[in-house]
Amino acid sequence: MTGHLYIIGLGPGDPDLLTIEASKILPTLTDLIGYGPYLDRIPDRPSLRKHKSDNREELDRAEHALTLAGKGYKVGVVSSGDAGVFAMASAIFETIDHGKPIWKEIEITVLPGISAMFAAAARLGAPLGHDFCAISLSDNLKPWKLILHRLKLAAQADFVIALYNAVSKARPWQLDKAFELLKEILPPYIPVAFCQAISRKNEHIHLTTLGDAKGSMGNMQTLVLIGNRYSQLIPQSRENIRPWFYTPRSIITEFIPEDDSSTIDKPYP
Amino acid sequence: MTGHLYIIGLGPGDPDLLTIEASKILPTLTDLIGYGPYLDRIPDRPSLRKHKSDNREELDRAEHALTLAGKGYKVGVVSSGDAGVFAMASAIFETIDHGKPIWKEIEITVLPGISAMFAAAARLGAPLGHDFCAISLSDNLKPWKLILHRLKLAAQADFVIALYNAVSKARPWQLDKAFELLKEILPPYIPVAFCQAISRKNEHIHLTTLGDAKGSMGNMQTLVLIGNRYSQLIPQSRENIRPWFYTPRSIITEFIPEDDSSTIDKPYP
Repeated sequence: MTGHLYIIGLGPGDPDLLTIEASKILPTLTDLIGYGPYLDRIPDRPSLRKHKSDNREELDRAEHALTLAGKGYKVGVVSSGDAGVFAMASAIFETIDHGKPIWKEIEITVLPGISAMFAAAARLGAPLGHDFCAISLSDNLKPWKLILHRLKLAAQADFVIALYNAVSKARPWQLDKAFELLKEILPPYIPVAFCQAISRKNEHIHLTTLGDAKGSMGNMQTLVLIGNRYSQLIPQSRENIRPWFYTPRSIITEFIPEDDSSTIDKPYP
Repeated sequence: MTGHLYIIGLGPGDPDLLTIEASKILPTLTDLIGYGPYLDRIPDRPSLRKHKSDNREELDRAEHALTLAGKGYKVGVVSSGDAGVFAMASAIFETIDHGKPIWKEIEITVLPGISAMFAAAARLGAPLGHDFCAISLSDNLKPWKLILHRLKLAAQADFVIALYNAVSKARPWQLDKAFELLKEILPPYIPVAFCQAISRKNEHIHLTTLGDAKGSMGNMQTLVLIGNRYSQLIPQSRENIRPWFYTPRSIITEFIPEDDSSTIDKPYP
């Protein structure tokens, strides 16, 4: 007999930003696994066991969840935001891929959630109104060189850029290096938003420009949103209210090098 | 007296994929504006006026919504997915930016929703487990040349790529051209998922590889998800069940040209 594993995105923090689907499944589970502060968001009840773990023990957590589900329990693994975006879903499938054959028999359902970039975008206006990308600045799981490579190409593509894991105590300098590279490619007037703890008690947004952006404006709870060269700010008439930040749907100006189509590199042999 | 304008993401279709926040706001509105099939998802009631419009009249719709909110009504503009992703939020802020000064006084709240790429990713496993980008293939509002430019850079960056607006009756050839370009840069074994109408009655997923992908596999309701070179398929033990599609969190192989950091182009003067 095997149980069922639910991989659940809890959204950015406000319980109202949970999906109805997730709010229906959570009360039916026997076991919940996740980072302590995320588990604290879910009400206790006698028939629910909460298995709290530290922030960086993803693979242990995945194995624990699969083991419990394999024993027949109805297990939920919770992440903040969307579980598929720099969160637990990938760690669980990695564990299944390289783990015990019986884990491939476990029924799994992934429940999508509101990821930090969409919660932040909604507060700001419509910064993701055009093509965009999401990059984690953490070099724990990929080389820093790859991060710089992606930032460079993202800027050349004029994507709106969302930076996840922009700053932590162990990674204090990466965000400044990222801004340094982006400033070499993009104009200084591009809007940049530091979005801290969106929908939680300590929510705070700081709106600036790429020219003025500094790594020290972010912390562990900050999602950084960088506009494209067409992004605009709209001052609001009401006093003391932050301008709206949006990216227009249309692009008229041509900024692509003339010889672009003839210079397709082939990095893969 | 001014009203309030809510810009609401309804999620991909299943009413359970609405956020609790959106489900609380919708019953309080006096007017709803949007594309007919999206308005049909919301129950009728005597105190609600539904203003249906065609799919491509975004700016008319935005002006209509702002006019009603300016008169004091509590207006909702609805989009499928997340309203900020290739949907109505950007059209509304564009209209405010270039429109009547009084529109800048209207109170506006954007409610985030589950965008198609996250609903699709949840069904597939964890394809967005690493850095990713979202590109609309529609050349109605941007030059086709820019789309090719972005696809090329996205492939060189090894982003997981989500293609929105991949196919329509008026744009039948773009998706094949996109695959043609991606095949020049990326290896043929990369998983590609054609995700149609996720969470709706006619949901259908077709999983293939970049080498075998064809534009004719998509239609107007299809979101196309293209893995990166590290994305994996995990066969499930249970019969007749699609393999899981996930992208590992770690990147070990180095595939970046050696001289990368010294060749930062500067497309902006």
